Amino acid sequence: MITYAINEKVIKYRFGHPICTDAVVKAGIEIKKKGIEFFQLEEGKTIKLSYKMGDDDIVLGLGENQRGMNKRGGIYESFCSDDPLHTSDKKSLYGAHNFLIIDGVDKFGVFIDYPGKVIFDIGFTYKDYLEIFIGDNDLDIYIIKGNSLKEIVKNFLNIIGDGYVPPKWAFGYQQCRWSYQSAIEVEKIADSFLKYDIPCDAIYLDIDYMEDFKDFTISEERFPNFKDFVKKMKKKGFRLIPIIDAGVKIEKDYDVYEEGVKNNYFCLDENEKPFVAAVWPGRVHFPDFLNPNARRWFGLKYKLLIDCGIEGFWNDMNEPAIFYTDRGLKKAIAHAKELENENLDIYTFFSLKDSFIKLSNNIDDYKSFYHTIDGEIVNHYKVHNLYGYNMTRAASEGFKKIAPNKRFLLFSRASYIGMHRYSGVWTGDNHSWWEHILLNIKMMPSLNICGFLYSGADTGGFNEDANAQLVIRWSQFSLFTPLFRNHSAMGTRNQEPFSFDEESKNIIKNTIKLRYALLPYIYSEYMKAIINKDIYFSPLSFEYDDEMSKRVENQLLVGDSLMISPVYEENAKGRYVYLPEDMLLWKVEDYNDRSYQVVKAGHRYLEVDFSEIPIFIRKNKMLVLGKSAKNVESIDNGELHVIAFVTDKAKYIYYDDDGKSYDYKRGIYTQIVIEIYKQHEDYYINVDSTGNDQIEKLHFDIVDINGKIVKKTVNI
Amino acid sequence: MITYAINEKVIKYRFGHPICTDAVVKAGIEIKKKGIEFFQLEEGKTIKLSYKMGDDDIVLGLGENQRGMNKRGGIYESFCSDDPLHTSDKKSLYGAHNFLIIDGVDKFGVFIDYPGKVIFDIGFTYKDYLEIFIGDNDLDIYIIKGNSLKEIVKNFLNIIGDGYVPPKWAFGYQQCRWSYQSAIEVEKIADSFLKYDIPCDAIYLDIDYMEDFKDFTISEERFPNFKDFVKKMKKKGFRLIPIIDAGVKIEKDYDVYEEGVKNNYFCLDENEKPFVAAVWPGRVHFPDFLNPNARRWFGLKYKLLIDCGIEGFWNDMNEPAIFYTDRGLKKAIAHAKELENENLDIYTFFSLKDSFIKLSNNIDDYKSFYHTIDGEIVNHYKVHNLYGYNMTRAASEGFKKIAPNKRFLLFSRASYIGMHRYSGVWTGDNHSWWEHILLNIKMMPSLNICGFLYSGADTGGFNEDANAQLVIRWSQFSLFTPLFRNHSAMGTRNQEPFSFDEESKNIIKNTIKLRYALLPYIYSEYMKAIINKDIYFSPLSFEYDDEMSKRVENQLLVGDSLMISPVYEENAKGRYVYLPEDMLLWKVEDYNDRSYQVVKAGHRYLEVDFSEIPIFIRKNKMLVLGKSAKNVESIDNGELHVIAFVTDKAKYIYYDDDGKSYDYKRGIYTQIVIEIYKQHEDYYINVDSTGNDQIEKLHFDIVDINGKIVKKTVNI
Repeated sequence: MITYAINEKVIKYRFGHPICTDAVVKAGIEIKKKGIEFFQLEEGKTIKLSYKMGDDDIVLGLGENQRGMNKRGGIYESFCSDDPLHTSDKKSLYGAHNFLIIDGVDKFGVFIDYPGKVIFDIGFTYKDYLEIFIGDNDLDIYIIKGNSLKEIVKNFLNIIGDGYVPPKWAFGYQQCRWSYQSAIEVEKIADSFLKYDIPCDAIYLDIDYMEDFKDFTISEERFPNFKDFVKKMKKKGFRLIPIIDAGVKIEKDYDVYEEGVKNNYFCLDENEKPFVAAVWPGRVHFPDFLNPNARRWFGLKYKLLIDCGIEGFWNDMNEPAIFYTDRGLKKAIAHAKELENENLDIYTFFSLKDSFIKLSNNIDDYKSFYHTIDGEIVNHYKVHNLYGYNMTRAASEGFKKIAPNKRFLLFSRASYIGMHRYSGVWTGDNHSWWEHILLNIKMMPSLNICGFLYSGADTGGFNEDANAQLVIRWSQFSLFTPLFRNHSAMGTRNQEPFSFDEESKNIIKNTIKLRYALLPYIYSEYMKAIINKDIYFSPLSFEYDDEMSKRVENQLLVGDSLMISPVYEENAKGRYVYLPEDMLLWKVEDYNDRSYQVVKAGHRYLEVDFSEIPIFIRKNKMLVLGKSAKNVESIDNGELHVIAFVTDKAKYIYYDDDGKSYDYKRGIYTQIVIEIYKQHEDYYINVDSTGNDQIEKLHFDIVDINGKIVKKTVNI
Repeated sequence: MITYAINEKVIKYRFGHPICTDAVVKAGIEIKKKGIEFFQLEEGKTIKLSYKMGDDDIVLGLGENQRGMNKRGGIYESFCSDDPLHTSDKKSLYGAHNFLIIDGVDKFGVFIDYPGKVIFDIGFTYKDYLEIFIGDNDLDIYIIKGNSLKEIVKNFLNIIGDGYVPPKWAFGYQQCRWSYQSAIEVEKIADSFLKYDIPCDAIYLDIDYMEDFKDFTISEERFPNFKDFVKKMKKKGFRLIPIIDAGVKIEKDYDVYEEGVKNNYFCLDENEKPFVAAVWPGRVHFPDFLNPNARRWFGLKYKLLIDCGIEGFWNDMNEPAIFYTDRGLKKAIAHAKELENENLDIYTFFSLKDSFIKLSNNIDDYKSFYHTIDGEIVNHYKVHNLYGYNMTRAASEGFKKIAPNKRFLLFSRASYIGMHRYSGVWTGDNHSWWEHILLNIKMMPSLNICGFLYSGADTGGFNEDANAQLVIRWSQFSLFTPLFRNHSAMGTRNQEPFSFDEESKNIIKNTIKLRYALLPYIYSEYMKAIINKDIYFSPLSFEYDDEMSKRVENQLLVGDSLMISPVYEENAKGRYVYLPEDMLLWKVEDYNDRSYQVVKAGHRYLEVDFSEIPIFIRKNKMLVLGKSAKNVESIDNGELHVIAFVTDKAKYIYYDDDGKSYDYKRGIYTQIVIEIYKQHEDYYINVDSTGNDQIEKLHFDIVDINGKIVKKTVNI
């Protein structure tokens, strides 16, 4: 083991010769140190770390995972998995995010930088022990310190590099379905949004836009004159977002296939032939995204669609998902043939059934193909969690070449820490279950802690049928998630905002309008978090240090000013809320209506009708908001509104930029510093604006502890 | 349609010529009436009922089902199903309980007495409509009225007959596992309970006690000298509860098989040969429990085990579950063979995979066998929901013949309304998921409303692995369920109370001891509910008529005196509780410690440490409790304790009986009427005892609204 100090707060412990994951972007200097701080280490062919937790210790992090924000009580396996049934016993979802924070007697973070399977037993087997198992001894372990949870996260985000920034329109509402089957159907959906006056920025193209599921092809039959269609839709106000899958169809004369074979861009089997698996297109090869040449090649393939006017993509099936391989299928069919005409005992029957059930995402398949990394052949199983990450990196690096100063929308299903520099993630194929709203709520801060700020769930749920109320309540949460997308699976009930009754449609419409009105705040907070290495969704304990705040799993802080308490239970017309301090409640039905209520610190039962969205403004904080519009680009933000809850003095830094380019990195952005000081019965407002050429007026609603509202307007 | 008045409160609407389900035990007199009250009726070859719900209407009932106590928002299909994955989208579980209550603008109950599939769309498709679909036009529909929810339920229970009463020892703690494989293992488990001083009354024998899964056989190898073993175990204080499955193994010279074939006791296929399906024993025949002769025959088979000293059984796999049939398996294997060496497109692959996945519990199989009812051949699909019911009825009727005045423990997996006269139910193969504690809580009153009072879930969860905290929290709820049984599946982590760490073991032990101490109350309330046609677990709205009480889904009333608020969230050290009135809180860690706290009406956040069980005693109500012991028969209840919360006057009727026989039906039981009147700073106590030969003293803790405790003792 060699120890490196990355900086004052971060120590790296290197075991053996790890494969470079590029998760961490900072190198360190070698130092002398014995053992790993906090942990007991068992080192051999594998590594085991143990930490004895205190009774009240809380464990945060692990990104996209099951159970609570507090991960205690579970076993988790970091192994990117395409498992569409996210029941709470599942140990792996699509992402592998090996960073966690202990908040207890000790306060520190630990990041296991190892791209194969890592097991975290967080008090499951032994209630007081955190145990981490790595089946290898080539890896890096980082210990991250800080004086607070917030600081530990900041120090971690600092070593893994700048987070992904999408174009501003990607903060608008987005509509997806597996699949809108044709240009005609897509346009019908778009027209419905226009007809019902529901804002929307993007419509998705799921796998059926392609010709036989071939990446970088477009079905001529269903999407004729694609370029014109993209243009037409953009004119109507909608961007189209096509999906790109990891597997490349094996088909003679299909250019991606031919080029990949010719240039050795595909993963290899044990005979050094391109590895064959079956996914949507049937038999495919997997590009070897761990090979920089293959990455470059694949990344530039996106150009075909970009040249048609496409500005956003979602990368899917990149765990990589495997439906079956010939090896597995042959074995299963042979098993079936063998048992023909036999009187099966029941265990033989179950084993036959299992032969077919377990064909998909089979570990034996993952162990049977190889990558070429720096000229060396590496078994996939050892680097499994880097696959989706590097597919997405390929795309992002391609975009940089194709249009260097243009932001693209990009998010991925599979991920590993470090991928947050290239894209966002969505939380995969969830269900139209009420439990999955709550899971969504809990997962957001966990993902943020691991660097993934641009994220969201399939609102309304992907699998199974949703009812109107579920889509309403879920939208009322998703309106706060940077990625706000409604998506549902083939064969399930339609769940676009206009798929239900009139009353429900109007509630969802108002919810989406509120999202657009909140964009000035949401975008500002997102960008500041990216720039300052903060997070967007935080657990209450990031700002409040009382015991109760540590235990709250169903409320979140959104940016610096807001706390939210979504309703996630069917038929509930209210919920309990914990307020660590006095806050100002704005219960929104229509964002144009402003009435506020000061809610005192403590436990409260809050009535929340189906049409209502409670927003809490923290003490001495401000919410900046504007107007809704048909899409992000049509928003007129010449005048903004500020709702401030001021007992003493409040300060807010409003951020904005062109929303399209990376010029903000060169200091080209708007910053408006707003300060409000309470002075007897009145307020003094100071506004300091730089780089602003859009906002002319700020209208203030300043509310004091007694609920008294003072209205003011400031010209800029 | 012919209309009958069953009594003043219940109307029966008869369509066509229904198959007699024996769900309702009361006949009525024909009356003239048009249409079905409350509903819009669409009548043809099928029946559809529609009811427009008010915005705030709540729908209760439907017994064993998913989602909330308030069923609104879901679709439910009454079709007994062996589906072990109880995710919240599932429309059918093991039972079919077609009774529901509308609590809204109108207040009434409706019971669909039809033994095939019935679909309830309760505001799923159209949020304001309750729609009931029956794919047939031979059925009875009952409308049940009453002035309150409680009265509607009473009027319903009144027409479906007296509920099942188990022996008193069946209210003790019970330990199960699939499977304790041998007499040696069973004894080891029993000895652990004794060693750790954890009370326990029964240990279960799951399918592996049999010889090759053959009903009414005992493996000589694993359970030699069974009768002696049963005796030995009973001497140690434990009863053994063997499982009985529905399918009878096809095996030459196996008496049950031979007799069944010889006497035409089995269900028939389309060729009038005994129908063949495969379950645990491999190929089996299904006894035709709808044929009274077959029922009589099967019921008397239990004698073999009863003669060994067995006093309790659980009937399983009686939906009936079908793992596969030759028809299905042949088809699937043929499908596989056909596709050998083909390059499968992805839809062909999925259809192949589905051929195997969908082999179990396939509707085509259910449509391919027949019952003989009153000499007529009836397709199984039409009477599917009667199968488990009549298997259990066969057992119960057998017991009555074998030992007419002896109570046996009996519960079933599949059920239909009416079966509650013969046995209890357990809620089947749940998961070690936190969500399933909450589901368990919500399901209990729903089952009670449909007549099933003796019920409970697999505590700790059947499928998947439990951690200590889950077993603790679940036990803290199950201690209130009449059936309190810990059960887990083969291949999962052990979850007996002593399977975890010392601290957790002690918490579970104290929880079980509390159960035994509460037995005087639990048994008294259970028996009074049975006798008076009341329920044991009620939603708050059965006693409180404020709006909030209708919405509470995670607290229950237990009997007449108690309200409980179980903790069902991982790592939670407290929860919110709603009190519709002032109550007395007894937070129990050790039942010998008594300290109380008056909690005022309203919303409260309650700290509940892992070791604590909060019990709320309602205003002017009493809790009667005794002492724990190693098992129910060892309890010394010579002195009982009464905890009373009295602001004015309180009355409690304590019930007890021999716990073994049906003598209580002839008026042979203990009844002690306890009355407490507040008089200035003191209390006047009146105790009126009949039939009591056990209790000598009552010790009172009487608490007033200020928490002041007055202690008194009354000799009887």
